[in-house]
Parts: sequence; C-alpha cells; structure tokens
Amino acid sequence: MEPMDVTGERLREDIEANAAFGALDVEGHGRTVLAGSEANRQARDYLVNRLEDAGLTVRVDPVGNIAGKWVPATADATAEPVATGSHLDSVPAGGIFDGPLGVFSGLEAVRSLQEQDISLSRPIEVVSFTEEEGTRFGPGLLGSSVAAGARPAHEALHRTDDEGITLETALTEIGYQGGGEIEVAEWDAWLELHVEQSERLEAADLPVGVVTDITGITHCNVTVIGEANHAGATPMGQRTDALAAASEFVLDVESGANDLVRSGSETAVGTVGLVEVSPNATNVVPGKVEIGLDIRAVDHGVMNALVSTAEKSLQRLETERGIETTFDREFDLEPVSMCTRVQTAATQAGDAAGVGTMSLHSGAAHDSMYVANVTDAGMLFARSKEGISHSPREWTDWADCEAATAVLAGAIAELATD
Amino acid sequence: MEPMDVTGERLREDIEANAAFGALDVEGHGRTVLAGSEANRQARDYLVNRLEDAGLTVRVDPVGNIAGKWVPATADATAEPVATGSHLDSVPAGGIFDGPLGVFSGLEAVRSLQEQDISLSRPIEVVSFTEEEGTRFGPGLLGSSVAAGARPAHEALHRTDDEGITLETALTEIGYQGGGEIEVAEWDAWLELHVEQSERLEAADLPVGVVTDITGITHCNVTVIGEANHAGATPMGQRTDALAAASEFVLDVESGANDLVRSGSETAVGTVGLVEVSPNATNVVPGKVEIGLDIRAVDHGVMNALVSTAEKSLQRLETERGIETTFDREFDLEPVSMCTRVQTAATQAGDAAGVGTMSLHSGAAHDSMYVANVTDAGMLFARSKEGISHSPREWTDWADCEAATAVLAGAIAELATD
Repeated sequence: MEPMDVTGERLREDIEANAAFGALDVEGHGRTVLAGSEANRQARDYLVNRLEDAGLTVRVDPVGNIAGKWVPATADATAEPVATGSHLDSVPAGGIFDGPLGVFSGLEAVRSLQEQDISLSRPIEVVSFTEEEGTRFGPGLLGSSVAAGARPAHEALHRTDDEGITLETALTEIGYQGGGEIEVAEWDAWLELHVEQSERLEAADLPVGVVTDITGITHCNVTVIGEANHAGATPMGQRTDALAAASEFVLDVESGANDLVRSGSETAVGTVGLVEVSPNATNVVPGKVEIGLDIRAVDHGVMNALVSTAEKSLQRLETERGIETTFDREFDLEPVSMCTRVQTAATQAGDAAGVGTMSLHSGAAHDSMYVANVTDAGMLFARSKEGISHSPREWTDWADCEAATAVLAGAIAELATD
Repeated sequence: MEPMDVTGERLREDIEANAAFGALDVEGHGRTVLAGSEANRQARDYLVNRLEDAGLTVRVDPVGNIAGKWVPATADATAEPVATGSHLDSVPAGGIFDGPLGVFSGLEAVRSLQEQDISLSRPIEVVSFTEEEGTRFGPGLLGSSVAAGARPAHEALHRTDDEGITLETALTEIGYQGGGEIEVAEWDAWLELHVEQSERLEAADLPVGVVTDITGITHCNVTVIGEANHAGATPMGQRTDALAAASEFVLDVESGANDLVRSGSETAVGTVGLVEVSPNATNVVPGKVEIGLDIRAVDHGVMNALVSTAEKSLQRLETERGIETTFDREFDLEPVSMCTRVQTAATQAGDAAGVGTMSLHSGAAHDSMYVANVTDAGMLFARSKEGISHSPREWTDWADCEAATAVLAGAIAELATD
C-alpha cells in the first residue's frame, strides 16, 4: 500500500470555511449549526459546491442526507461504492471539528486519490448525514437511521423542534428535502473519521485511533417520589425525602459501574447527568426528584447488568425509605463492533503512511452505529486536545487532521480495490 | 381567670372575607397575596375597616406594618400595650389561615374583651406585619425586623422584587407607606397565634399549642465543582463527578442531623432542599452542583455542630474526590425562647377556657422571633390538618380557630391586667 499524498492545506481551508457558518464570537472556535437552520443551509451549500468542484455527482435524499459520488476511471460504475463521511450539524456552542472533519476529510481523500495513479475498482461516496447530534429534532443519528433503513423517512420528517416546526418544513425551507436515494445497505464498506472526544490518543502520544467497537447506550428516566414538607416543621424521623433517596441512587449507580470496571468491563460507564428536584426550595424537604441515567458499555450484557443494579437500588430504597419510584428505559442502542476488514485496512493504511495508530473503542454514539448494522463499517479517531468536545474549546491539531486524513485515504483506496 | 366569650362566627366571617383577596380557583382554599400587591391592598383595606369598626385607632408605619390600638375605659392610655397579630401576606398558592388567623383572632379577641366586663389596665394593639413570607421582597420577617429595630426602615424600603420594583414603590402604590410609628420595644408583651404547620397537636388530639422556643435557622449556599465531561467518552476512573460528590454531601447532612436527634437534640433538622446541576444533561458527567442547605434547632450550639458536620463532609470530599467546594453561611437566625410569663398566661387561659393545650417548639420562623428580642413574647399554635402549610390544602377546623382565639383572648386579658 502506498502512502496517500493528502493536502492538509486544502482540508484546513474547507474546515475553516465551514467554521464560519454559525460561528460564535467566543473564546476558542465555536459554532452553532442546528439541523435545518440557515447556518446549516450555508454549510450544506458550501459542501455541495466543493463536492461538485471535485467532480462528484451530488444527490440529496428525503431527510436531507447528502452524498457525492465519484466513479474513478478504473472503476465499475455499478459496483457497490465505498463510502465515507460524517455530519455538518453541531450542538449549540459546539466545536468546529466534530462532524465537519469527517465530511471534509472524506472529500480531501477523494481529491488526493484523484491526483494519484491508483487503480480503484469501486466508486467512492462522500456523505453528510442530517441531525447527527439530535439537538433540534432529536434523537441523535437521525439521518443515518433512515439511510440504514432503521427508521421510515416520514417518521423522521414529522419530528418537530421546540417551536413545532417539522424537520420536513425546515429542510424544505433551506432547499434540502431532496428526492435522491441514499441507501447504506448498497455500500460495500464505510469508514468515518471523527475526533476522539477523549484522551487516550493524547495519553499514548498517537495521532490516530482505529475503533474496534462503539459502545451501546441506554437512557433511563427515573422518578423518585417522596413527600414535600416544611424543612423546619418536619422532624427528621417523619420525612420521606426524595432527594436523600435519589442521592443513594446516584451513588449506587456509580459504585455499580465501578464494580463492573474492576471486574474487567473497562468500558462500562454509568452516569446520572440530569437531576430535577421539586419543589427545589432550600426550606422545603424535596418531594420529587426526576433523574436522567446514562449507561454504556461495548457489551450489551454488561449494560443490562448495570440497569439491573439501578433497578435493585430503587427497590431497596422503596423498602428502606418509603419512597415510590418509576423506571423507564427510554431507549436502548446496542453496542456494535466495527468490521475487522475495515479495521485492518485502516491499520495498514496507518503503517503505510507512517502514522502511528492504536485500537480503541468509542464511548460516544456515531452515525457509524446504524451504518454498521447493514454494511461493513469502521471508524477512525483523530486526537482531541484534552478530550474536550461539544465546546468551543474542542481542538484537533491541523497536523493530526492531515495524518488522520492520510490514513482515511489509504484505507479507502484499499477497500475500493478488489 | 374567666373564660373568654369569643365568637367563632365573626372570626370565620373575617377569615373567609380575607380569603377572597387573591383567591385561587383550585381545589382546597388557596390564595396568593404577595406583599404590596393589589390583593394585599384589598386585604389591608378590609383589616383597617374592621379594626375601625371595632373602635381601634389605626396607624401605618413606613414599611407598611399596621397597628390598631384599643384603649379600654379602665386602662391607662399611656401604659405600654399588650400586642397581638401576625401577617396578611402569603406565599404563592398559600393557604388562608397562615397569617390571617393571627391577625383576625387578635381583632376577635379585642371585640370579645370589649363585650365583657373585665378591668384591663393596658391598651391592646392588633398588628399586621409586612412581608412575613419574604416571597416578593425577601428576606422573610421583614416588617417585624424593622419594627423591632433590627433593620433600618430605608434598607427594607429599598429592597426590590424580581422586576426591580422597590418595597417603597409597591407600598406607595397601594397606599400603605405610612408615617406612623410602630415600635415593638414599647410593647409590654406580645402573643401571636399561628397555625402549627406540623402534626404534633393532631397526634396529641389537642387543639392548641403553647410555644416554648422558636427554632434558629441558618441557610448555607454550597457549591461543588467537578469536571463536566462526555458521559460516554470519560471512563469511570477519570471522572470528577460533582453530582456524585454532592450526593454524598446530602447523605452526610441527613445522617449528621439524625445523629443529633438520636443524641437528644430532637428539634435538630438538616435539609438539602435545593439542588441545581450543571450542565444537567443526561449524557454529560455533572461539572457543578449548587446546593441550598437549611439547618435548624432550638439550640444554636446544635445548629453550629451540624454546620460543622457539613463543612467536614466537604473537606473529606475534596480530598477523596478531587472536587473543589465553596461554603457560604448566608444567614443565621439564632433560636429564641418564648417568655415564661407569656407562656404561663397562655396555659392558664387554656385551662380557664377548658381548651386543652400542650407545650411545643416552632420549627418554622415567625415574626415573633424579632419581637422576642426586644419584649416579652409568646406564640400559640392552632392544630393544622396533617401539618400541611404553604398550600391550598392547609386547613384548621373552625372549632380549633375558635378555641385558640379563646385562649388568645384570655391570655391577652391576663397580660393586660397588672
């Protein structure tokens, strides 16, 4: 395998141009690009122009997913393509790499392949999925779920934002409710480059990671119901304090996750990230606490074990503290393994390019989860400064962007060569 | 001592008339009467009319406290008066007895004394203090703090509500920024009737309580600072979870209070009633938790011991969890004992009226705390259904209102007789 001659300057130009859409006047490099917004239209227009500049044929599907297709002169135009890409939408006040790095590195990989004398037998597609973050029309991974056949397009289109605007209306207004067809199942393989969002590559002093598994995620909504009472007039012995009970629950989840890590499931995490106390006044014993629980691991059995620990904690607290509880496992996305063939192509491309790589799992969800359910999928991670993401402080050095793009291009070349 | 012939019907008529001001169309008996509001003006006008109907001379002081003075024919008009009363303002969606019972029972006590052949040597004053609840212009006990000399009038008048309106402006608009003088220090004694707000009288099957002490209250604002991080990408071992630390703190406060109760300080209570988590998203490890802590006991040393327990908990958590914390003891109202002379008069009045009484402490703050710092003060409690207060579900049976008013009238007669 030959090292790919990607051009870091072109990639940087694209990412910086894209960063201007929805840019925030804050310290760092921030942008807010919600799906279907004006900033999202600008970013999409820029991408489409750049894809077409590079000779790709662009189509947009009903939920606004964008794909640009390049058929190399040596390729069979009807062969299943190798696809790469990510997303252009951001969380509010997000960073400039989370998503765009994967889209524009895909474009840069195509441009570099076009410039080199490589005999590719498959078309290459560069893809941008709609509403990966799920901020406006929730849930996340919305566009990829439709393209992978996991959700009907009309269901996604009828989802509404906080103001009651449907995704369909928003996409129509920005001109991206298309009639094209983007079917993940028709791809031969998929490889997405994304920022790592944690610190393992920094710790290992390596620029690029090859993802082995993407963690599963389950979210559970928990309600703890006690009795609101006057903080002064209610003796300690007569309280049913919903917050004290919820505090035990938080610690039970934490220790349950720690136990799983100690027994070898090092990807297991359990987080109570959201707590709403009612009535939430200093001088009132809390009567109700609503809790958002996030559980992840690369093994679904381990996830289920931690869910079970959480449920047992609530049962114990009902008995010991006289509270009532509800437990709703709102959604459950099973872990997925990345395809060995794609991982191997990525690792070999790193070796060929002289870019150090390591294997790691993804603790965050990505469009590649839905893609992996219907075709051979892989992911690359580029080193993130201090693991910061979803923040204007998110940063990946340009040299790391270039190195990761070189690995991406090499792996795509390998996958597209039968 | 003769039993007083109070008229429950007249008292009920006044409380029900007052309940119409700011009345809520909800189940139960609710009202919202914030200090200085239009509903508050209506309630004040009604009170002033009823005081004047009964021949009392009304004055209003600069912070809107109202006092009606009755000089019995047998009394020395220049003698220090015996005063009684409470407040007319409510919390949002409060009940109809909390405050008004004390004001209108004072008026009814005067009316019944006027109708009976008792030789009183002191004038009687019926008082309504401004902004007891502290909902609009905070802190609570505002009017009594001024009348008792603990706070300059201008400081109270310059306090603002959430819209920037000063108490002075609000009182001027409703016509209750007066020029009269109400000086608690010039009263010979004070006795306030209030609903109990807890269930001890119900448990003892007694209509009236004689308060021995009013609990001290301290509020502490606590901040726990950890590190916000991606719930998926941050392994358990690399977290500084502010909520997990805060959960330990909540439980340390609870067990610290329970320990004090077990060792004999049965009035000690410690409550974390308020918790604000940042960023408060299910998929983000909490970076910061702001906590409102309420500590009370009838012994200031016991309160300080629990504050110390809370501070030690934070020190331990800083060491064990790597969090940072801040601790601000925002205010500290020391406990006060009720005057023995006033308690005795109340207990004897109960015996004379054939009304069963018991001694108990107040776990809630009342205007009587400030009054007690400058004159002989006491409180009576009337039985509350299920101890519910600050709610449209607050209720005290009319028979209990009448019984408590009979005790109040008898005690006032005793205190006003040299």
